[in-house]
Formats: sequence, structure tokens, C-alpha cells
Amino acid sequence: MVGRSHSTGPETGSQIISKQQQQQIATGGTTRIKNLNRFTNFVKTGMEGYILSTAKFTCSPVEQPQIILDARIGGVEGVMWSNPSTYYTCNVTKPKKETKLKGLKSFIAYSLTCSTTGIQVSRRYKQFDWLHLQLTNKYLIIPIPPLPEKQVSGRYEEDLIEHRRSILQLWVNKICRHPVLSQSEVWKHFMSCTDETKWKKGKRLAERDEYVGGNFFSSVNAPNVVLDVANVGTAVERFARLSRSLDESCRKIYDQVVETQKRMAGPYKANWQKMAAAFDSLGQSLDIGGNANNSSVQNAIKTSAHVLHKIGEQHEEYGHKHLEQLLDFLFVAKGTFAAIPDVVNIHKSAFAKIRENERYQNEGKLSAEDAENIRQKVDVCSYSMLAEINHQQSERDLDFATMFGSFFSQQAAFYHNIGNQLTHLASLYKPK
Amino acid sequence: MVGRSHSTGPETGSQIISKQQQQQIATGGTTRIKNLNRFTNFVKTGMEGYILSTAKFTCSPVEQPQIILDARIGGVEGVMWSNPSTYYTCNVTKPKKETKLKGLKSFIAYSLTCSTTGIQVSRRYKQFDWLHLQLTNKYLIIPIPPLPEKQVSGRYEEDLIEHRRSILQLWVNKICRHPVLSQSEVWKHFMSCTDETKWKKGKRLAERDEYVGGNFFSSVNAPNVVLDVANVGTAVERFARLSRSLDESCRKIYDQVVETQKRMAGPYKANWQKMAAAFDSLGQSLDIGGNANNSSVQNAIKTSAHVLHKIGEQHEEYGHKHLEQLLDFLFVAKGTFAAIPDVVNIHKSAFAKIRENERYQNEGKLSAEDAENIRQKVDVCSYSMLAEINHQQSERDLDFATMFGSFFSQQAAFYHNIGNQLTHLASLYKPK
Repeated sequence: MVGRSHSTGPETGSQIISKQQQQQIATGGTTRIKNLNRFTNFVKTGMEGYILSTAKFTCSPVEQPQIILDARIGGVEGVMWSNPSTYYTCNVTKPKKETKLKGLKSFIAYSLTCSTTGIQVSRRYKQFDWLHLQLTNKYLIIPIPPLPEKQVSGRYEEDLIEHRRSILQLWVNKICRHPVLSQSEVWKHFMSCTDETKWKKGKRLAERDEYVGGNFFSSVNAPNVVLDVANVGTAVERFARLSRSLDESCRKIYDQVVETQKRMAGPYKANWQKMAAAFDSLGQSLDIGGNANNSSVQNAIKTSAHVLHKIGEQHEEYGHKHLEQLLDFLFVAKGTFAAIPDVVNIHKSAFAKIRENERYQNEGKLSAEDAENIRQKVDVCSYSMLAEINHQQSERDLDFATMFGSFFSQQAAFYHNIGNQLTHLASLYKPK
Repeated sequence: MVGRSHSTGPETGSQIISKQQQQQIATGGTTRIKNLNRFTNFVKTGMEGYILSTAKFTCSPVEQPQIILDARIGGVEGVMWSNPSTYYTCNVTKPKKETKLKGLKSFIAYSLTCSTTGIQVSRRYKQFDWLHLQLTNKYLIIPIPPLPEKQVSGRYEEDLIEHRRSILQLWVNKICRHPVLSQSEVWKHFMSCTDETKWKKGKRLAERDEYVGGNFFSSVNAPNVVLDVANVGTAVERFARLSRSLDESCRKIYDQVVETQKRMAGPYKANWQKMAAAFDSLGQSLDIGGNANNSSVQNAIKTSAHVLHKIGEQHEEYGHKHLEQLLDFLFVAKGTFAAIPDVVNIHKSAFAKIRENERYQNEGKLSAEDAENIRQKVDVCSYSMLAEINHQQSERDLDFATMFGSFFSQQAAFYHNIGNQLTHLASLYKPK
């Protein structure tokens, strides 16, 4: 059985800063780090450069996410990322062991196939990890779902590998369904590049992307409609509270499913099998009766012992297969919720500039033009936040519907299957 | 909940000798007591009086059980109690509280209704207990099923009363199905006497019955075919071993069902309800989202919490209702098995006379005529034992088929019902 420890607590959002990232900051790129000093973070993420228009760009952004206002919905709820012209899916399949350095190093490579292009690439966990970092750095306002946790020991165990593949598939689904992430250059490169040289070149390109962090907002096309500050504040605050609460609730369900899984493989299975043993003992007792041909009742009792034992095993299997699937779902869902506070903090750091603006203007330290410029920049940030809030809301409903719908279906099938086996047993005792 | 302690260990067979019984012995009646000294027991049960033809009777027996040889079956397996011309059933219903001595004493009276006569009588536990003693004393060769145990504290609790009624019904069923017991005068009197004066008269008559204990065999009409001593010995020995083993196996199932019952009302129920609480918490989290009209997913989650909670309760209910019923069945079944060793000992004490006979004849202490008389008497005892063995075998198959058939049916219904509720839940998450 796969220990659950590797997926109990996704720690997204608090990335540890790497050498590469430090270089990225030094060379003008940005990175996102958790920092108690919000101001420092504000500078480091590139939010300051963006808001104060000090960032310099050498080229136009390749990606230009569009935000629209859905008039039918209206208000902050109607702020949406414009949907891409086509959606696609990407299958994560056939994890297989590969080696390099003449067999000295081995790793698991997963196969990714895009539904529209049909291109198939082979990617290892380390590459997913790199991609995750790029996405987190670039799309400050988008909570990036967590990758399965890296497990060092026993990482070639078959069900651990399958379990990781399943989480990676859910992760990829989330990216593909996102109107911004699904159009991301770095993701497209990851999903379609089959040539080693081109791959490395693309990597360097992504790492030198100018539109990462705060500068991402410079690539966003937001409506030229002034936002109501109070409405935005309320909507973002509610989103933050909701996300914290959902994170906690999902964790409760997660813990309860882990508990149920343990019970299924432990006492529940044992209870059925102890009953099986008791029937088995009764069947053996009847052998003393010395009937050459076992009576139908005697045969029914022996069959009962067998079936009860099997039902016990099915409890364990159910726990491993189906509850595991729900856990994977929940892992991704709550990991995404857990990434939201960082996203909200990014917005808050920008949003705080609105008040600062007013103060500076009152003190005569800021020209009306500069103030308007800053307000427009913060509005783009708010538009992005609102668009993301609304995307997360529809994702959340879809996620819950998918995971609980499939969970209850599987659970229903499990109980009906037991019911059918018991109905069969009951029929064996009916007078012929 | 009804504590199971009152029916975990039926202690049939080892009756404590009462003053009334001692008088019975003194006045020529016999009684059956467990005694380490088999010889003393042999005398006291009236077996000696019967085998040595020293018992004196003042009248012919009213009951004359007939033993037949079923030629289609042949051998010791073909020895059968002749079936009565008609079978009947008797319903034990409506336990109700009654008082006597102007309300100073209260007791529970059960209503008994015979299917053929339609006569309804009211009987209390004390009277069942008296009847049980009469049957045990009279029919030494027949294992009398156990009555529910007498419980002093809380004996008016509703489910305890219903539980006792249920065991009394099973007990009465056993009597009604038995070719000898169902024709018993004392039982017929018990089941049909509605007049208080006649009831007391009939009681005295039963207590003075001359054909009790060993003398019962004087009333039996057995075939006039000499039995093969070796065959009888093997059959009886096998029956004794089988009964001991079945007693033990049924006890195992019984204990396991008690264990399951506890789990159902404890950790199983709790597990469902903890999951319900987790869903409830998720539903409440979603309220923060502030949708005026709850989304369909949100409603589905709230309904899930409710249904999961209910399924938890159903686990406890199932344990109380249906597992309790199986326990009652098992109580009667294993209580009957537990009564068998005493029955076998009665036969053994008579059977031992065969060898004694040979020795005495060889020593010239016994005339050929007397020896033949003793052999005939022992044969009647053996015929009765074999008839009873065969009756117990068919009863056993019927009991197992009935109790396990109904157990698995109910269990199947329970699991299907859960399956249906879960299927309904799954449907709530389907996209509209």
C-alpha cells in the first residue's frame, strides 16, 4: 500500500528560493517568495516595477490574456478571463523507468499526449517541478495546483508511480482547463517539444521571460472601465475567507477518507473475515455428520465462508483503488485552495497602492497623471484577481461535482456489489 | 439496547433439583439431574426401573410415540419418529403487563394461539419455565431447546420483552415441529387450557405422570427388529461429536455477530457520521461564497451530509433489528446442541446394560429370558435415540437454512439500501 504521507499536506506557495531564481532576480526576472515583510516581497515579485511603471521591456508579450465583462452577470461576478478559441486535453500515461549516464541514474518518465496536436512527449518529475516553478513565478495571480510530493524512498514502487501519475493527470487537467495557463508558452513548450536541443533553448527562453511576476500584468488586456474599490475589496476578502474555509473542510474530508481507508483494510476487512472463519468452522463441523454427499445447506455454509472472505478482501481493494482516487482529487483541490492566500496577498500589495495614492495626492507628492497611471495599473491587477476568482469558482463547482459524483458512484457500486453477493448467498439457503 | 448477557450461554440440561422434584422422586415419579455418578443418575432418572422392568404403572400411557423404519433410507438413518397426522403452529404474540394480588405483583403475560384450535391462552415466563422442566424430565431422550434466560433487572423494558417473545416463539416452533413433543399432553394442556381451575388440575396431573424419565420408554412403540449394537454405538458417538462441534461453531458465529453488532452501533456508525460532519463543514464553508441561491453542487453537498448521517444511523438500527434476530436464532440452535450431551448420556447409561448383560449371562447370573427382556428395553431406548438423532438432523438443516437465508437476505437488503442512497447522492452531482 502507498503511504499517504506523501500527499497529506501540499505546501504550495512557499517555494524555497533557488540559485537559479536568485540569478533570475539579478538579471531582471522576478520570483515569488513567501516573505513576512510584504514590502520586500512587493519589490522582489516585480509588483513595484509594474505598479510604478519602472519595468523595462525589450519586446511585446507573446501571451496577451484578455479580460472581458460578462454583461449578463454584471458586477465583479461578471469579470472573466476571455475563453480561448479551443480547449484541449492532455493525457498523462505510461509512466516508465528510464536511465541515463549509461544506467548510472534512473528515473520515471511520464508520457504526455495533447488531444489537438497528437504530439507525445516524455517528461520526468524534475521537469514538472521546473514547470511548476515557472508557472508560479509568472502567474502571481493564479493559484497553481500542487504537484504530487517528491518521495525519495521506494519511488519505483508500482502503485506509488501510478498514484503520482494520477495526481499529475489531475494537475495537467487543471492547466488545460485554465483560460490563461492553457495558453501559456512555457506550458505549450513543455507539452509539445520533442527535440532535446529545442527543449533546452525553450527552457532558457522561459527563464528569461520578461513578463513574469508583476510584469505579467503588463501583458493583460483589461477593460477600460474603472473598478469600484469597495466592491473589489469585498469580493477579494470573501474569496480569501472562502478559500481558507474550503481548504480546512477539504482537509477534514481528506483525513476522514484516510481514516476510512485504514478501517477498510483493517477492522472492516477483519470483521468480514472473522465471520467467514466462523462459517468455515461450522462447515467443518458438519463434515463430522458424515454425509457422503454434502447437503445443500452444508454446501451453502461452505460457499458463505468463501464469499464472506472475499467481501472482506473487497473492502481493502475498494479502499486502495477508489478511496485513493478521491484522495488524489482532494489533494489537488485543497492544494489549490492552499495556494490562494499568496495570490490574495499579491493583490493586496497592489491594492494598498490605491490608499497610498490618495495620501500622496493629498500631500501633493503625486501628480494627478501619475496617480491615474497607478490606479489603472492596480485596476488591471484587480481585474485579473476578479477574473481568477470567477474562474476558481466555476472550477471549484466542477471539481466537487466530479470528485463527489465519482466517489458516491463508486461507493454505490461497492455496496451494490456486496448486496448482490449476499443476495446470491441467501438464495443458496432457499428450499429446492 | 438489550444487553446480550441474558442469552449468551444457555445452561440447559443441568437442572437444579427442586423440592417438588424431590417429592416427585419420592412418590414414584422421576426426575433428571446432572450427576457425576452415572449410576446414581441411572437410578434417579428412572432408567434402572425401566431397564430392569421394576417400574409399576397404574394406567396405560396416554401418549404412545411410534417409531418406524423408513425402508427407503434403511439402516440407522432410517429410524424415524412416526409423524403426527397433522402439524400445527402456535403464535406467541402481544406480551403485556398484568398484575395480581391487587397490583402488588406484576408480570408479563404472552399470548399463545394454536393454529388448529384457534384457542388463545395467556402464559407468563414462570409457566414456560415449569413446562420446560416437565418436558425435560419426561423426555430424557429429547434435547429440549432453551428458554430465554430469566432477567431480573429491567425486565419490563420494551425491547427486552420483545426479544424474549421472539425467543419464546422460536422455542414454541421447535416444540410444534417435533413429532413427539407436539403431541405431548402437558404441552397441549399448556397451549389450550383457559380455565384456572382446570389449569391447576392439569398441572398436578402432569407432575404425577407415571411415564416420565426412564418410564417414558415404556410408552414408546418401537419396531420389533433387533438392532446392531455396533451400528448404534457408531451413530450415537458421531452424533455426540457433531453436536459438541456444532455447539462450538454456533458459539463462534454468535460471538462474531455480537462483535459486529457492537461495531455497527459504534465505530461503523461513527465513521459514516464523521464523514457526514466533514461534508456538513464543507457545505457551511461554501455558504461564505455568498451565493443567494445555493448552487446545485452546494445543495448536493448538504444533502450528502444529511444522507451520510442517516446511513450511519441505519447501521445501528440494522444491528439492533436484524442481527438481534440472528442472535435469537443462534441462541435456540446452540442451546439445543448444548442439551444433547445429557441426552446421549441417558442413552449410554442404558446401552452399557448390553455389555453388563453379556457378562452376567456368562457368569450365569442372568437368565436368558431376563437378558432378552433387558435387550429389548435397551433397544427401545436405542430406537428412540436414533429417531431423535434423525429428527435433530432434519431440524438442523431447516434451522440453518432458515436463519442464514434470512440473515443474508436482510444483510443484502441493508447493503442494497445503502447502495441506492449512494446512487441517489451520485446523481445529485451529475451536470444538469
